[in-house]
Amino acid sequence: MTAGGPALFTDLYELTMAASYHARGLDEPATFDLFFRSLPEQRRFLVSCGLEQCLDYLESLRFGESELSYLSTLDLFDASFLDRLAELRFTGEVWAVPEGEAVFEREPVMRVTAPLIEAQLVETYLLNCISHQTMVASKAARVALACGDHDFVDFSARRVQGNEAALLGSRASHVAGASATSLVLAGQVFGIPVSGTMAHSYVMRFRREADAFRAFARDLPGRAVLLIDTYDTVEGARRAVEVARELAADGVPLQAVRLDSGDLGELARRVRSVLDEGGFTDVRIVASGDLDEYRIASLLGHGAPIDSFGVGTKMGASTDAPSLNAVYKLVEDADGPKLKLSPDKVTLPGRKQVHRSRGGAGLESDLIALHDEEVSGGEPLLEQVLAKGARTAPSPSLEAVRRRCRETLGLLPQRLRGLGPEEFEPFPVTISAGLQDLLTCIGQVHE
Amino acid sequence: MTAGGPALFTDLYELTMAASYHARGLDEPATFDLFFRSLPEQRRFLVSCGLEQCLDYLESLRFGESELSYLSTLDLFDASFLDRLAELRFTGEVWAVPEGEAVFEREPVMRVTAPLIEAQLVETYLLNCISHQTMVASKAARVALACGDHDFVDFSARRVQGNEAALLGSRASHVAGASATSLVLAGQVFGIPVSGTMAHSYVMRFRREADAFRAFARDLPGRAVLLIDTYDTVEGARRAVEVARELAADGVPLQAVRLDSGDLGELARRVRSVLDEGGFTDVRIVASGDLDEYRIASLLGHGAPIDSFGVGTKMGASTDAPSLNAVYKLVEDADGPKLKLSPDKVTLPGRKQVHRSRGGAGLESDLIALHDEEVSGGEPLLEQVLAKGARTAPSPSLEAVRRRCRETLGLLPQRLRGLGPEEFEPFPVTISAGLQDLLTCIGQVHE
Repeated sequence: MTAGGPALFTDLYELTMAASYHARGLDEPATFDLFFRSLPEQRRFLVSCGLEQCLDYLESLRFGESELSYLSTLDLFDASFLDRLAELRFTGEVWAVPEGEAVFEREPVMRVTAPLIEAQLVETYLLNCISHQTMVASKAARVALACGDHDFVDFSARRVQGNEAALLGSRASHVAGASATSLVLAGQVFGIPVSGTMAHSYVMRFRREADAFRAFARDLPGRAVLLIDTYDTVEGARRAVEVARELAADGVPLQAVRLDSGDLGELARRVRSVLDEGGFTDVRIVASGDLDEYRIASLLGHGAPIDSFGVGTKMGASTDAPSLNAVYKLVEDADGPKLKLSPDKVTLPGRKQVHRSRGGAGLESDLIALHDEEVSGGEPLLEQVLAKGARTAPSPSLEAVRRRCRETLGLLPQRLRGLGPEEFEPFPVTISAGLQDLLTCIGQVHE
Repeated sequence: MTAGGPALFTDLYELTMAASYHARGLDEPATFDLFFRSLPEQRRFLVSCGLEQCLDYLESLRFGESELSYLSTLDLFDASFLDRLAELRFTGEVWAVPEGEAVFEREPVMRVTAPLIEAQLVETYLLNCISHQTMVASKAARVALACGDHDFVDFSARRVQGNEAALLGSRASHVAGASATSLVLAGQVFGIPVSGTMAHSYVMRFRREADAFRAFARDLPGRAVLLIDTYDTVEGARRAVEVARELAADGVPLQAVRLDSGDLGELARRVRSVLDEGGFTDVRIVASGDLDEYRIASLLGHGAPIDSFGVGTKMGASTDAPSLNAVYKLVEDADGPKLKLSPDKVTLPGRKQVHRSRGGAGLESDLIALHDEEVSGGEPLLEQVLAKGARTAPSPSLEAVRRRCRETLGLLPQRLRGLGPEEFEPFPVTISAGLQDLLTCIGQVHE
């Protein structure tokens, strides 16, 4: 990975605006909302993810010698501002939707209140972190819905956007339901179970496919997953059975075989027959190769006897919706609630809370209201996670976040659990009377 | 950013295969090719990028205490293998296409020859690094072609896949033509020029738009780019002129105005008129907001008077082709050239070189040949960059890589410089007689 502290992970304009605020003494508290302007048409809900890394960042934000020294070379900042940066700490408060929770368009998923300079400077990092992990978790949640009771494992490390994308993407897909990841670093850093099979190159290293299977199964007793498609998948299955028999004689079970190419549904059926006829009904079938929720739903819908899926690039890079339009907008400052009126980009002013209502059948609706507004029904969704720059409570474990996500997915209305592309009725997100009044009132002031 | 050394940035199966090779003494030199199986249909060429970070990784690869200690918890590896990892260094040789060069499908962009364990372990990192930066550089090259003589600046940091993706993406887009980046960290780490404007939140912080313009222009004399679409773009342009007049009286020029929403072509024309009528023909117009090569080509094709483009998510996340199918395949080992026969995934065996032919009009064709094969015409494209695990020469500067990319783009046949989606004749990449003979010969052995 490349060196460089996160304090300079910021767009230049955050710093030039901050310098101007500093010069003018405009550093009173301000509130910004981080929200998704709209959902991609391929998504019916998003899964909030990335908060944990944002809190780490906010708690540890420092401009050190190296950063200040670089900034001084830009000929943009005076000594007084650089001194301000040298002592800058994030001292504000943050309210946020917990990780693993479903969120919808226009709802604040994070609300930052801090002296204006601090609140402005953190924009780039927060947007990047939340939009990336939320994107991956939202995609992985769809894979989880398609998989139902079947396992899926994150195989995406090799073709996503850099090392950190893979590491945090593993985290996000684990939150949304992946049982394990192939990425060893994610095991070390986050404690996610790691899982792996074998590559074609291993099979090719041996003169005969069966020799490769035998060697690998012996060297990883009970843990081997044999990749059987290097030459011919069904023939490979027969060789796997041959090796499984030898192993069984020594009391060593073969765990699974993997298919990685061809017509996975048809091949899985033929491979299942070969395994079953060989007496190995316990040997599982893992499938991989350009999989996503659509392919998995189709395979399982047609009864393919696949036990577990390795899901890679299409999940890790969320290739059908490869970005989310997260924004971070000023909603209140020393002069009161604020509103932006650019075409199609109207923001909701003021400090806000989201109230989520559920009925017997699950989630019913969300109401965006002013923070202090009295509303009837619904549970507040935003929790205070940072006060005076420090966490208000220890973060939930990754396991707890996974549980929350699983529960939330279970509470989603059935129509949101569909994969599309057919039309569906969006989840109702409405605006409270108090917020509507404020919106009308400020809108008129600007006209 | 999250901690964690890159040695564990590897898929688990690389380690389990390596452990098996170690147990069996199968650690003779092997050669792997890294190549793109096919080009996305939205791409007519790719721009090789990411080699520099791969060489850093290979030269510094080490399994330290923390990594070994974690691996020992997995109950997969014996002490002998962990000892092997503790002393493992990458000792092999690497041949690669220089960064900034155009590459096409099936051509090796990197060729790794090393003891099998080393060559296998580095797969995940190399694929991740090359496929990410090549993806971004290839997209940015299309933006560069659309922009022609107009500037463009990388604005993508906030919505790509994590911090490192933004940092290395800035590098890749700079290689392919972006004149600057908004990401300050990319300035510090890579020396890329940084550039920025102002946000809507700055405008909203002031009671009147003109007050915000005045303050920012005074605080950044000669460097201010005023964002004029917070309330009404044309009205914003008039206020910018008003402020520019006051500044001019003090000898301070206004650099530019920025449009970020609405019909950019129509608004640019109206804003240009306002600026020109005000006597500010030198004040430039910057446009941003969901831009990509298609929008830019359309705007410029319709004569929009836009001087510079801020290009964000669609470039940084390459949203129309958000992944590349890079693969890393065993092509030769102790037993000779190797071949994989999975359906649609046949690989080209043996150590290879690519010979690129050019004529008076530019690049004409590529020939993939065996490394030692005599071929007529063409310049070899793969250069040796690592010998015995160390760089064979200092890396070229980023400026030199940019120059190479600019030259290559200039040599591309006109049909490859088009943006699509109309049909086009792909760049001819052929296979030499020697390679064809080898392919036929090994294919028959397997039948």
